[in-house]
Amino acid sequence: MKPEKIKGVLSPVVTPFAKDLSPDGKRFVAHCKWLLEQGCAGLAVFGTTSEANSLSVDERIDLLDMLLAAGIPPGRLMPGTGCCSLTDTVRLTRHATQAGCAGVLMLPPFYYKGVTDEGIFRSFAETIERVGDENLQVYLYHIPPQSQVPLSLPLIERLKKTYPSAIAGIKDSSGDVANLRAVLSAFAGADFDVFPGSEMLLLEGMQHGGSGCITATGNVNPGPIVAVYQNWRSPQAVAMQAGLDTLRKTMQAYPLIAAIKATIAHYAHDEGWNHLRPPLVELDAGQRTELQAKLQALSFAMPGIV
Amino acid sequence: MKPEKIKGVLSPVVTPFAKDLSPDGKRFVAHCKWLLEQGCAGLAVFGTTSEANSLSVDERIDLLDMLLAAGIPPGRLMPGTGCCSLTDTVRLTRHATQAGCAGVLMLPPFYYKGVTDEGIFRSFAETIERVGDENLQVYLYHIPPQSQVPLSLPLIERLKKTYPSAIAGIKDSSGDVANLRAVLSAFAGADFDVFPGSEMLLLEGMQHGGSGCITATGNVNPGPIVAVYQNWRSPQAVAMQAGLDTLRKTMQAYPLIAAIKATIAHYAHDEGWNHLRPPLVELDAGQRTELQAKLQALSFAMPGIV
Repeated sequence: MKPEKIKGVLSPVVTPFAKDLSPDGKRFVAHCKWLLEQGCAGLAVFGTTSEANSLSVDERIDLLDMLLAAGIPPGRLMPGTGCCSLTDTVRLTRHATQAGCAGVLMLPPFYYKGVTDEGIFRSFAETIERVGDENLQVYLYHIPPQSQVPLSLPLIERLKKTYPSAIAGIKDSSGDVANLRAVLSAFAGADFDVFPGSEMLLLEGMQHGGSGCITATGNVNPGPIVAVYQNWRSPQAVAMQAGLDTLRKTMQAYPLIAAIKATIAHYAHDEGWNHLRPPLVELDAGQRTELQAKLQALSFAMPGIV
Repeated sequence: MKPEKIKGVLSPVVTPFAKDLSPDGKRFVAHCKWLLEQGCAGLAVFGTTSEANSLSVDERIDLLDMLLAAGIPPGRLMPGTGCCSLTDTVRLTRHATQAGCAGVLMLPPFYYKGVTDEGIFRSFAETIERVGDENLQVYLYHIPPQSQVPLSLPLIERLKKTYPSAIAGIKDSSGDVANLRAVLSAFAGADFDVFPGSEMLLLEGMQHGGSGCITATGNVNPGPIVAVYQNWRSPQAVAMQAGLDTLRKTMQAYPLIAAIKATIAHYAHDEGWNHLRPPLVELDAGQRTELQAKLQALSFAMPGIV
């Protein structure tokens, strides 16, 4: 039976590393549990914020197996599985689907630039055909600032028409309101969920048929983001959204993934969170102190973080 | 003992695929042998032209092992080993170095854009330290049109100063003459080989201290390119270079990798060469006919291709 679709706020979980840069399964499981306790509907593990492309396929499979072994329900998981290599994408997608994950978030192959819609279509189609699992639910991952390989509206339409059951939705991390509106207008509905890639577009998305959001800052600020999702029709929603925006802007004044890890390290009193795999680098001491002061000024908190 | 450095014309060998898109070791070995017979100094297998990032790490290791088993001398090989994931890059680099390859051509991690020189430095440094093999010879791979992660002059300088033995040279596929001149002027010498990423800059490079070139079109036109390398000081060199340019421009009026495969398919009478992994697509029938006619008009030939 097809897993129930996740709706609401998903966190693209940051991946902790030991000092030797090996993935740290213990901290990863603990953070995933905390995020679910804070109200996240799902965990988009192995996304951009997760440094997933800095991991090998085996490292990703091992980490997913650790989450499942620790009792994280697969129905709450939407792992990223899109790689440059077709065979890697198929392997990760098959593993996640067979494990019962609610869906997979799939980048197009991102090495070659200026590729055709036909080529991108074949990448997704080949993967869906090879996995050949009726429980597969693919969320397309549109993130041109990093991938530099945009997913056009005609491509999305062709994929949805060809694989109406397997194509379940999209994460739009373009940061472009016009594109988000166009995607919502063209595709949002019972069979296709649209998630903006930042909570700054959460209210906007919900007002036009969105299904929540999948957002990096969900790693540190999940409660207030979930509150906007739950109360988007209330008169307070605009003010609540403004609060999210302030926090987001404070965080993204720094390299965002490093800032998220530094924030978890600070609030969990655990310096072990401050490791990133190259090419990303941790915040320096001055940046950390400055960010902490700004967060304190906002009365920011991470309730229950350990 | 450190392998002797390859100088001259290297072909970034196209990777043949079976109809089911599995790598075709037999055609791969045959093409590598033909390229060496035609005078290529080396084979830069698993580069951009090779669709290497469309292969898994295991597929790349298996193909390299097939070449070695078929008697291709490792001293003629410069496999591409740079991946997004540090652990993948280390695994491929270690395997190639232990196999005795003359060098490795290393992309920086290319998923994240706008990363710092410090982060890119750490990627190369971490790989060199982890491989920890005094026979390692790294050729930096600067190809901003695809990677979107340029290697700056200060970064190259820092890497060369920190690892004078391991950093052996660079392939500059920027296509930017000004950058090539700057790299040649700053670094070309006994301990650092500079290869333009296109034969269109071969003569220019040789006149300013270059060591040859590593070029996609080397897959189909190796003999004439090698002739320019060997005769660059002769009065005929400018006219010979003009001939290379004409052929190159003819090929790159089409998607280049597909055009190279179509050309091999045509001259080897082997349609099996026309498979590409998505997101790349093969030339359509009309493009193939047109390209063949243009090549015939240039009296183009691939002597001895089977």
